[in-house]
Amino acid sequence: MTFNEKLRSIQLKNNSLLCIGLDTDIQLIPKSLLRRADPITEFNHRIIEATQDIVCAYKLNLAFYEVLGERGWHAVHQTLARIPKNIVTIGDGKRGDIGNSVERYAKLILEDYKFDAATVNPYMGEDSVSPFLKRKEQCAFILTVTSNKGAKDFQFLKVNGKPLYEKVLKKIHQWNTKKNCGVVAGTTHPGVLKRLRELAPTLPFLLPGIGAQQGDLESAVRYGCDMRGELAIISSSRSILYASHDENFPDAARAAALTLRDTINHYREKYF
Amino acid sequence: MTFNEKLRSIQLKNNSLLCIGLDTDIQLIPKSLLRRADPITEFNHRIIEATQDIVCAYKLNLAFYEVLGERGWHAVHQTLARIPKNIVTIGDGKRGDIGNSVERYAKLILEDYKFDAATVNPYMGEDSVSPFLKRKEQCAFILTVTSNKGAKDFQFLKVNGKPLYEKVLKKIHQWNTKKNCGVVAGTTHPGVLKRLRELAPTLPFLLPGIGAQQGDLESAVRYGCDMRGELAIISSSRSILYASHDENFPDAARAAALTLRDTINHYREKYF
Repeated sequence: MTFNEKLRSIQLKNNSLLCIGLDTDIQLIPKSLLRRADPITEFNHRIIEATQDIVCAYKLNLAFYEVLGERGWHAVHQTLARIPKNIVTIGDGKRGDIGNSVERYAKLILEDYKFDAATVNPYMGEDSVSPFLKRKEQCAFILTVTSNKGAKDFQFLKVNGKPLYEKVLKKIHQWNTKKNCGVVAGTTHPGVLKRLRELAPTLPFLLPGIGAQQGDLESAVRYGCDMRGELAIISSSRSILYASHDENFPDAARAAALTLRDTINHYREKYF
Repeated sequence: MTFNEKLRSIQLKNNSLLCIGLDTDIQLIPKSLLRRADPITEFNHRIIEATQDIVCAYKLNLAFYEVLGERGWHAVHQTLARIPKNIVTIGDGKRGDIGNSVERYAKLILEDYKFDAATVNPYMGEDSVSPFLKRKEQCAFILTVTSNKGAKDFQFLKVNGKPLYEKVLKKIHQWNTKKNCGVVAGTTHPGVLKRLRELAPTLPFLLPGIGAQQGDLESAVRYGCDMRGELAIISSSRSILYASHDENFPDAARAAALTLRDTINHYREKYF
């Protein structure tokens, strides 16, 4: 099964384009969990149990785990083990390096952890990305336009009259020989998102920036989806994980996720 | 002491611009070490013992440690513990992410591990780099021109008539308010290196690509150094670490490192 087939399948089954970012911060989880042997894993397991029938993907930003040192990598393994096999998993590390180094990042994320997808930084070019593109079952989401303020420093610079991010998108098409490339497109620039989708009608889009980063949800759905209203992964983290800081956090997370999923579906019905 | 002061001090003391990349691969170290509890750490300790008086820096590419899983982070700690305090340490992770994520990468590399410097990817702009620039004692080496083939995919694109890497260098100057920015400049493009040094006469340059990547050493020294023949860190890994695959590897590594240091110094005398 290709990555896109897996994505379409779970989006249909759970009627959801929602991805929950498991960017779990020990400072923000309920205090009662801190007595557990592995609070981060325990928190993630409860979030997954409470939301697995209403999401299409879980994304783990690796920064949140690496900073925990040796325990962090254990938490990634334990978290992934609890995610049902038909749900897409994304290892969000934004890596990029020369050949023999990036080979190792790709091995770790795609072979050892077995994430379905990784996020990758394009600045170092083709040979820094290609180790993530070896298997048609696994996708590399390549940073194109990011959701942060600094995106404008380089991504929007004009190259022969066109913004750099369009050059990146053009290269992504060239690298897409196994049909396993994806696009990271921040939701904080709706006009840009519209343009990216026009240029890449069939690629999966990973859309961060909803929630704490104040990306626009309606335009994320309208412009981020393909023409069937699919192949968009709309990621939210803090507004779901920390919907409550009390013992009832799984219920609160489910309620927040359900509201977000249904709002996304409302816009899908409106535009597709 | 600022980062640049520490760098100049050790370069003077050890009369060396050489940095050894401790990109240690368990497949390539002597088989006899595999019986040890922690072969990677053991190998690194012996390399450090054999070379610490003839280098200015050690660079650890984090990909090589991450791929080892939980053991890898332990090996980073154990390796750093053996490096004398007056030698510069570089955590080569090429990270870049949005604010709350990149804060964690910076915490891990600069606070927890206490590397003197980190390598950083500029594609996501200022707020993706700034968490690495908080302390004048610690440097962020920002990818400008890399030594790999893919460098040409984006770094050399013309923006208003000038290559993108010059735009990156211009931003680095803006970000350099604490005088703790550095430049990663591959040695595989001598003409570009000359131009970068003209544009950034006082920044420290990290120069990868010598050895296995076939960068040109003479031009790396000639164009990579500042006007005093300093502030260049010339990094080599495989040609030193694996100079021998036998038990005598520390001696062989020392001999290879000494030859490289002395060749660098020969070119310094020639041009400065």
